[in-house]
Amino acid sequence: MRRKDFLKIGGMLAATASQTRLYGSPISKASPTHGPVDFVHDGLLLSPKEYAALLMKLADEGKIKTDYYSNGGVVEELEAKFVSLLGKESAVFMPTGTLANHIAVRHLAGQNRRVIVQEQSHLYNDTGDCAQTLSGLTLIPLGVNSVEFSLDELDSVVKKTQGGRVETHIGAISIESPVRRQKDQLFRYESVQKIAEYARSKDIKMHLDGARLFVQPVHNNVSVVQYSAPFDTVYTSLWKCFNAASGAVLAGTKSFTTNLFHERRMFGSGLPAAWAFAAVALYYADSFAKDYKQAWTNAQQLFGLLQKDERFSVTQFENGSHIVELTLKNANPTRFREALAKSNIELSAPTKASFLLKVNPSLNRIAPQSLASHFIESLS
Amino acid sequence: MRRKDFLKIGGMLAATASQTRLYGSPISKASPTHGPVDFVHDGLLLSPKEYAALLMKLADEGKIKTDYYSNGGVVEELEAKFVSLLGKESAVFMPTGTLANHIAVRHLAGQNRRVIVQEQSHLYNDTGDCAQTLSGLTLIPLGVNSVEFSLDELDSVVKKTQGGRVETHIGAISIESPVRRQKDQLFRYESVQKIAEYARSKDIKMHLDGARLFVQPVHNNVSVVQYSAPFDTVYTSLWKCFNAASGAVLAGTKSFTTNLFHERRMFGSGLPAAWAFAAVALYYADSFAKDYKQAWTNAQQLFGLLQKDERFSVTQFENGSHIVELTLKNANPTRFREALAKSNIELSAPTKASFLLKVNPSLNRIAPQSLASHFIESLS
Repeated sequence: MRRKDFLKIGGMLAATASQTRLYGSPISKASPTHGPVDFVHDGLLLSPKEYAALLMKLADEGKIKTDYYSNGGVVEELEAKFVSLLGKESAVFMPTGTLANHIAVRHLAGQNRRVIVQEQSHLYNDTGDCAQTLSGLTLIPLGVNSVEFSLDELDSVVKKTQGGRVETHIGAISIESPVRRQKDQLFRYESVQKIAEYARSKDIKMHLDGARLFVQPVHNNVSVVQYSAPFDTVYTSLWKCFNAASGAVLAGTKSFTTNLFHERRMFGSGLPAAWAFAAVALYYADSFAKDYKQAWTNAQQLFGLLQKDERFSVTQFENGSHIVELTLKNANPTRFREALAKSNIELSAPTKASFLLKVNPSLNRIAPQSLASHFIESLS
Repeated sequence: MRRKDFLKIGGMLAATASQTRLYGSPISKASPTHGPVDFVHDGLLLSPKEYAALLMKLADEGKIKTDYYSNGGVVEELEAKFVSLLGKESAVFMPTGTLANHIAVRHLAGQNRRVIVQEQSHLYNDTGDCAQTLSGLTLIPLGVNSVEFSLDELDSVVKKTQGGRVETHIGAISIESPVRRQKDQLFRYESVQKIAEYARSKDIKMHLDGARLFVQPVHNNVSVVQYSAPFDTVYTSLWKCFNAASGAVLAGTKSFTTNLFHERRMFGSGLPAAWAFAAVALYYADSFAKDYKQAWTNAQQLFGLLQKDERFSVTQFENGSHIVELTLKNANPTRFREALAKSNIELSAPTKASFLLKVNPSLNRIAPQSLASHFIESLS
C-alpha cells in the first residue's frame, strides 16, 4: 500500500511536472504569464515546494541513492559528474564554499605557510579569517580594490618573503574568478596562465575559487576545463548555479582528495546525509551551461530592445560576466522596481538611478520581447 | 497555473499522507503487514521518498519559511522550539554535532585551555582531534573505558594543573550522555550534580554532549530540562532522534549564542539554506518523547514475551538506555537475522550469539505480540 501510493504520487508529480515544468528552466516564448523572473540570483531560487517536488520526482525515478556521512550514493555520483565537468582527477563534496577554499589552501600550502589571495576575494573578506585563525596560515592580499593582481606584485612579495630573517615560503596562490566583490568580473585567462607559469617555476601551488565558474565560458570563450587546467585544486558552488540548497565540490588530484572526508569531518562538516543537496545539483549539472547560454542570449536581446528607448542605458563591465548595469533617465527607480515586481520580475535595490542586473536561467521563462515590454511599461 | 498545480499536488499528498502515514510513527496494533521496523537506528530512518513527501506536506501547509545562511525562517522556529525543550535561554542551529561540541568547548574554555572529557567520548575519539588541532585546546581524558569519571579523578587533574610550572587552567568539562561507545549508558544525574557543584566552585564551565539526550527521561526519570540545568551549554542532535537528514542545536545563554553564527560560518558551516533539515526536525520535535516512551513500553512487552521462550535471553545494562542485549541459545544468529529481515525487521550484525538491539519509534509500527511472533518464528 505505502509503496504503491508513493509510486502513484510520484507518477502524478512527474506528469504534472512535465506539463508545467515545476522546476528547471522552461523557455516559454509565447506564454502570456510566466514563472518568477529575477535579476538577483545566480541560478533558479527554488522554493521549498519546488525543491520538495523535484526531490520527489528524483526519488521516484530511483535517482537518489542515499549517502553515508556525505560519502557514496548520489554524493559520489555528483562528485564523478564534477570530475568530468571540471576536468580534474577527483572531487569531494563540501557543504560550503568557505570550507572548500579553506581546506584547499590549507592542504596546498603544506609547510609553506604564506598564501597569496586577491585583496577583493571571498577568502580574504568573508570567512572570518578562517585560514589564519584555524589553520595558522598567513594570507597576503594583492590587487587592492582590483579584479586581478599583477605578476609584478606577486614577484615582489615572493622576493620579500625570500629575504625575511626567518625563512618563510609562499605555499599557494588562490585566485577567485568571477570576483563577486568586483561585479563578477573575470580574472583573465591570459593572466592566470602567466601566474601559473611563474608559480610552477617557484613550486607554488594554485587554487581556483570558481564559485560561479560555470557562467564564464559564455563571456571569455574559455571552457571550464581549460580555465581550470592550470590550477591544482578547483572549488565550485552547488547552490549558486546548480540550485542545491547548499553545497560545493572541491576537485584536484586523486592524492589530494583521498581521505579528505576525514578532514571535512574534523571541521564539523561531515553531514550525516547530504543527498538532498547532491541530488538536486546533479539534476542541473549538465543543463546549466546550455540554460545560461540561452539566458544570456535572451538578455542581449532584452538590452538591445531597451536601448531603443532613450530612458534606458545598459553598461557592460570590462571582462564582465553575468552582471550588467541598467541606468534610468528621468524616471523613478523605486517605482520602476515596484512595478516590475508586480509582473513577477525582481530587481535588486537601485543605487541612485542604476540597477545591477544579474542574468540567470530564470530569464528563459519569458520571451525577451515580452520582458522588454514589462520594463518599458514599468517606467510610466 | 504553476501555483494552482502545486496546491493541488500538495493537497493530494496531504490527503494520501494522512491515510497511509507515509512518515511519522503510526501505531498499527492490529495491522497484518507493517512498515520497516529496525533495532539499529535512534529514530526513523526516512527514505528520500518519505523525506521529500514530508517536505511537500510541510511546504504545502506553509510551514517552511526559508532561512538565509541558516538564520531566520524555520531555522529560527526550530531554535525557539529547542530553547523550550532544553530549558535554555537561546539556541543556534549547527549542521553537525561535531561542530556543536567543538564550538561549545572552544567558547567555554576561553583563556583556560584545558578541557576535561570522558576518555570514551565522541569528542575525544571521533572528531579527528578537532578541538586540539583547530582550537589549540588540550583535552584531558578521564574515566578510561568507563561511562563516567569520578570526582576524585577530576580533582586530581585540577590539582596537578594548578601545580604546573607554567600556569594553566581547566576551562571546561564536557560530559556525554548517553555514551555511545558504552552502549548508550547514562552518566548518572547524581554524578553530574556533584561534578557541576565542584566545577562551579572552581569557575569551570560545563558542556553536555546530549546527542541522544531525549531518550534519557524514560530510563532515569530525570527530565531533559532538569538534566540540562547544571550545564552552561547543551548540544543535541537533530538527525538521531528527530529524523532530519543532518543537523544539531547548541543551546546556552543569550550572551553565548549571540553572533555565534559568525563563528559557524568561519568553520565553513554557514549552510546557505538549512530549511530542509530544520523543518523535518521541527516536525518531530514535540512527538519524539511520546513516541519513544511508547516504543520502550512495546519493547518491554516484546522482551517479556521472548523470555518465556528459553532460547532467548535479554540483558539490560547498568544505567542503560535504549540498547539491550538479546542472546540466542542453540540457534544460528545469522539465519535468525536473515529470517527477520524477510519480515521487514532489521537487526545489527551479531557478536557470537548476541545482538545489541536499539529501541526506537519504528517499533510502534507493529504490535509487540506480532513482533514477538516474528522473532520466535525466525528461530526455526
